[in-house]
Amino acid sequence: MIATGRGLAVLALALFLGACAQPRGTGDLGIVVEREAGTLLVVDTTQRKTLARVEGLGNLSHATAVFSRDQRFAYIFGRDGGLTKVDMLKGRVAARVVQAGNSVGGAISQDGRLIAVSNYKPGGVRVFDAETLAPVADIPATYGGDGATSKVVGLVDAPGQRFVFSLYDSDEVWMTDLADTANPVTRKFRDVGEKPYDGLITPNGRFYVAGLFGEDGMALLDLWNPDGGIKRVLDGYGRGEQPLPVYKMPHLEGWAIADDHAFFPAVGRHEVLIAEMRTWRQTGAIPVHGQPVFVMARPDGRQVWVNFAFPNNDTVQVIDVPTRRIVKTFTPGKGVLHMEFTPRGEEVWVSVRDADKIVIYDTASLEVVKELPAAKPSGIFFSSRAHRIGL
Amino acid sequence: MIATGRGLAVLALALFLGACAQPRGTGDLGIVVEREAGTLLVVDTTQRKTLARVEGLGNLSHATAVFSRDQRFAYIFGRDGGLTKVDMLKGRVAARVVQAGNSVGGAISQDGRLIAVSNYKPGGVRVFDAETLAPVADIPATYGGDGATSKVVGLVDAPGQRFVFSLYDSDEVWMTDLADTANPVTRKFRDVGEKPYDGLITPNGRFYVAGLFGEDGMALLDLWNPDGGIKRVLDGYGRGEQPLPVYKMPHLEGWAIADDHAFFPAVGRHEVLIAEMRTWRQTGAIPVHGQPVFVMARPDGRQVWVNFAFPNNDTVQVIDVPTRRIVKTFTPGKGVLHMEFTPRGEEVWVSVRDADKIVIYDTASLEVVKELPAAKPSGIFFSSRAHRIGL
Repeated sequence: MIATGRGLAVLALALFLGACAQPRGTGDLGIVVEREAGTLLVVDTTQRKTLARVEGLGNLSHATAVFSRDQRFAYIFGRDGGLTKVDMLKGRVAARVVQAGNSVGGAISQDGRLIAVSNYKPGGVRVFDAETLAPVADIPATYGGDGATSKVVGLVDAPGQRFVFSLYDSDEVWMTDLADTANPVTRKFRDVGEKPYDGLITPNGRFYVAGLFGEDGMALLDLWNPDGGIKRVLDGYGRGEQPLPVYKMPHLEGWAIADDHAFFPAVGRHEVLIAEMRTWRQTGAIPVHGQPVFVMARPDGRQVWVNFAFPNNDTVQVIDVPTRRIVKTFTPGKGVLHMEFTPRGEEVWVSVRDADKIVIYDTASLEVVKELPAAKPSGIFFSSRAHRIGL
Repeated sequence: MIATGRGLAVLALALFLGACAQPRGTGDLGIVVEREAGTLLVVDTTQRKTLARVEGLGNLSHATAVFSRDQRFAYIFGRDGGLTKVDMLKGRVAARVVQAGNSVGGAISQDGRLIAVSNYKPGGVRVFDAETLAPVADIPATYGGDGATSKVVGLVDAPGQRFVFSLYDSDEVWMTDLADTANPVTRKFRDVGEKPYDGLITPNGRFYVAGLFGEDGMALLDLWNPDGGIKRVLDGYGRGEQPLPVYKMPHLEGWAIADDHAFFPAVGRHEVLIAEMRTWRQTGAIPVHGQPVFVMARPDGRQVWVNFAFPNNDTVQVIDVPTRRIVKTFTPGKGVLHMEFTPRGEEVWVSVRDADKIVIYDTASLEVVKELPAAKPSGIFFSSRAHRIGL
């Protein structure tokens, strides 16, 4: 009987040790998308190590992520319409819904209670409870009179429980207020320009900018003055005057805001363009190694890091902001797909798909700090995004 | 014997339930200083509740805090020279040192590995290991030839493992690089103006600004161009032309940066002043209810919230940034000492000392969301500061 008693005690102790992970903070967690395997790595940016691999996330090509306001959960938006909530502390899927046939991105509301997903088919935005992933609201992107829906792109969160997004097929920008989820209020801006294909919101949540696929220039909405409507800016921007084939329309999300200027990828040309934020006029262009894809500012705005489209996607360049000069060119390997700065910018993580690794650089010394194995890594997202507007 | 066995099992289970708190994220944690009792509340900004009270922190008048990069630990700088590391997940003190006789503030290095504390007596900066609080470096603020040390004020972190601070007694600003902790490298800027009494660094870590007690104007250092030296800006700023007694020199830390302008407290007068960031020249003044103490921008920069010195310290005013107008005046109670926005700005927590409470406002509706009891609360600090430069 003593043995049985001891057995119970040992069992309980094993339960205790097994189920009770050491408590840890979540401010230094992040995820790395392994796109071909449909898996995620949970990573720790303090120890620079992988904590867990999470499976069962479906098609993760072009997958993006947002984070819960407590920074415990990541919400992953898959191309196959899957929305997956991952518990980073436990290293496993907490909830998953396949909410549409084809989705391209998502956002989390200012208060962290709502997850919005933008869909191609059926075109529109669906909104889910961040806790349970239960459906909360549905905003079909209908246009014309016959019930057709448009592909939705460039979905971002804005201050005040609002989401802003673009309708590719109907040349519109919509701003939906979900303060009352039972009665979403949508304000529609029409004729914004031909075929808006992506959008961004500035880090302060004030300006929404949509790129145009069908013509040059961009559509600008000042959320502090929506009555002012859409303005056309950067008239020369687009595919119109480019002499090279466009391998990849650059992401707008990657615009860098630094030193009162926006640094952003030219379309087709081997240039990073510069626009003054006050006037939204182009003021310069920096020749770079290839067609830029992501143009990202270090959090303090002193450097801008750039990666490139095929066939130059083995390279990363670093621009010094005050001098507008390239101060470093790295060739970490083929398939540099994404970059993510640590929250205060002392290091940057770079995914190198074909080398199956993450390379971590010190942004002051510009030296490699560490490399981590990863299977065909693409997007890297750190939990500090939870506290940022529009990320 | 069965009873004994069961007893063991029950004991183990109790251990399991007691010691093994539910895992939780730390991105929505914060602390509230209860200055008279020398205690802290650990709070949760998602549930809007108090999780724990932590005791044994010594004298907490004017206490400030910074956070570890994983957002699990808060470092509290007490007026009595105490540096206390608090484990917010466990709700208890993790480590504590009394490092000097009289300290006024601290900062955490960009990589989160170093804690710096500024001291009046002996005047200087002491640097500690963030993990263990073991001493790492000592930078006495010596000046003249006789070994005298100056009071150190306005200590902030800057990108690249640097700390910047001001020497009150010798009219200097020092910038110390701790990339090699065994060999700190200090660059000294002399004759910055009479009696620098506080300092701030802009949110991008580029400009350090020191207020001057002995004369009007402020000292500006551009960290992107330290060779340019100290520049004098805002020549009219200070006590010189004020018609009212100065009850309290306003904190500089509370400067709000919004819409390319800095909003900051006038000294002595009932005004919030506005300066253009590009030129550092004053461009306006907004009449307010009293002598402002903290002038804080909502994270999106659309609103600025202001509290006031005695005898007007029962009031909070909200300024709408684009129109420069006061849109709301609250009187939550006597002794409004501090305000802290949630990371993305949907709510703000306000400490009301004499009413023994925290009042939480929705910043969109400007309605009270909830009140929480707290014993003579002063400073409120949320863990999202971990990811910000200079906080």
